[in-house]
Amino acid sequence: MPINNKIKSIQPYKPADGGYKIRLDANESYITPDDEILNKINDSVSAVPINRYPDPNAVELCKAFAEYYRINPEYVTAGNGSDELLFVIFTAFTQKGDTVVTLNPDFSMYKFYAHIAECRNIEIEKGQDLQINVDKLIDICNTSNAKLLVFSNPCNPTSLALEREKVIKIIQNVNALVVLDEAYMDFYDQSLISSAHEYENLILLRTCSKMMGLAALRAGFAVANKNLTEALRKCKSPYNVNAYTQAAAATVLRMRDYLDNCRRQIIDSKNFLYKQLTEIASKTGWKVFDSKTNFVFLKPDNSAELFGFLCSQSILVRKIDKYLRITAGSRQENLAVIAAIKQYIGE
Amino acid sequence: MPINNKIKSIQPYKPADGGYKIRLDANESYITPDDEILNKINDSVSAVPINRYPDPNAVELCKAFAEYYRINPEYVTAGNGSDELLFVIFTAFTQKGDTVVTLNPDFSMYKFYAHIAECRNIEIEKGQDLQINVDKLIDICNTSNAKLLVFSNPCNPTSLALEREKVIKIIQNVNALVVLDEAYMDFYDQSLISSAHEYENLILLRTCSKMMGLAALRAGFAVANKNLTEALRKCKSPYNVNAYTQAAAATVLRMRDYLDNCRRQIIDSKNFLYKQLTEIASKTGWKVFDSKTNFVFLKPDNSAELFGFLCSQSILVRKIDKYLRITAGSRQENLAVIAAIKQYIGE
Repeated sequence: MPINNKIKSIQPYKPADGGYKIRLDANESYITPDDEILNKINDSVSAVPINRYPDPNAVELCKAFAEYYRINPEYVTAGNGSDELLFVIFTAFTQKGDTVVTLNPDFSMYKFYAHIAECRNIEIEKGQDLQINVDKLIDICNTSNAKLLVFSNPCNPTSLALEREKVIKIIQNVNALVVLDEAYMDFYDQSLISSAHEYENLILLRTCSKMMGLAALRAGFAVANKNLTEALRKCKSPYNVNAYTQAAAATVLRMRDYLDNCRRQIIDSKNFLYKQLTEIASKTGWKVFDSKTNFVFLKPDNSAELFGFLCSQSILVRKIDKYLRITAGSRQENLAVIAAIKQYIGE
Repeated sequence: MPINNKIKSIQPYKPADGGYKIRLDANESYITPDDEILNKINDSVSAVPINRYPDPNAVELCKAFAEYYRINPEYVTAGNGSDELLFVIFTAFTQKGDTVVTLNPDFSMYKFYAHIAECRNIEIEKGQDLQINVDKLIDICNTSNAKLLVFSNPCNPTSLALEREKVIKIIQNVNALVVLDEAYMDFYDQSLISSAHEYENLILLRTCSKMMGLAALRAGFAVANKNLTEALRKCKSPYNVNAYTQAAAATVLRMRDYLDNCRRQIIDSKNFLYKQLTEIASKTGWKVFDSKTNFVFLKPDNSAELFGFLCSQSILVRKIDKYLRITAGSRQENLAVIAAIKQYIGE
């Protein structure tokens, strides 16, 4: 009785089980911080008074984030991962029946939150090239009177990205609030983070879960002008980011050299994986998409079969429809997945 | 433009500033764990692979919680504080326009979440005695066709509690989903946690932020039958509880002797504060409410004046309308607030 149709129509989330030797399915960083870094993190966590509520506005964490990206902390809101910020934005910034525009393929949770918020969801199918058609997107947003447009750039799962000018064109030409998810922008150079506050209709999302290698902590951020920031802060739960995460993430955000090094290593790893997969694709006729992220998006002849074969080798990647998404891992992990794919194609 | 009327009508949350010597305003535990306990917590946290996403279902944490309360972990869902669980319940288990029944005074966030979820909120004013009128509550829920009823037991802020049988009567006689917030039930003995799964319309909430002294971590739990638990798990964000919190809270939940000792100390502290305030009230004609929590609820002649005086002594309590809510603190903190109140009444 207490479970309404909205809930009934949701498919349960099935997390992958833990039985795989190599996990290249969740776009995490493969880098384990060394002991010196871990000790600093642990010291900051042990200094937290465990019996007291966290700072509701996560002031030090927002400052550290703002310093890292050289922006003003007044435009920053911290969240329990950008997931929580999406949940808050979808439930508070829309009203029932409002139109929300999403694209497909894109991060699957956008549709989920639109559904929970009882929005009318218009999903635009990307073409064969999986690129965003900017003019078509603007047109659909405005003719449908969309209140909210959300997309990732660079895109998860396609790994493709729009240049800054194209994103600005979208923001300036739609009447909707634009939620621009830059979770993977640490691997590309077309961020709007420095100018996000200049747009009246932009909330930009970032995360510490990818390049920074802090997925365990759930630290996400929204960057927006002061009006939108004030609105977000009053719609979130007061103590939304726990104090351990605030302390640990602030500590790492202040290690610029370490983070710059992580970024370089991960991009190198991605480039290696990309090159290897491109070589395989040139022989098999598969398609590999141009990657601006820490993963490679691949269209093999038979994604289900290749996915199953990799699983049988204890390698987990993500299967998305006709495609596979493979996270760049350590040298050893990359070599293992490449060797397995070569074995699969009989090379 | 992107900020709708729903958001505009929300008052910004103003956290207390940090300038007070004594904080008795947030019903936290005053107990700082000793080094042996803290070392165990820190060890569990350092073992977390920081670059990997947390367990989506927080299996070990739910198990530790279930062991502590001797219930089945299949009925348990972990949240980023019970706040997040309330947010999920209000947005997913209601549809916009559904009627939600709340009481006043009660935990202020219930109304907030009902507002975000665009529910019709019927708020029942408690009488002078601040007790819940069970028959009236049942009648209003059913005649208003309420889909959701939420209340805290023991009640924050009144400190009063209903006996188990009365709560069962409510659950069994309303057609609504009942969200029973037992955040303070570790200080009383009328919990429904062992039988929560037997009701088709009950979600019971608990927290590690009060008796357990882990407010920094944001660990909350829902206990409900399997259908409701499955629904909750699929409506929450996949990685809602960070891995540090999962590790640290599971560690503490497995320290039964430590927690039992915390409970006894805090109840002793509350009893001391209650007795002192009752003595003052017998002279001044103020009202002190029977407390089943870790705080005392007080109706002085002039709550604003007394609140201001305590602030001037660097003691922060919570002012709620004509009342003050004072958290039981350490011996020293209790003596300080009592001394200040005696000074205020000229004793």
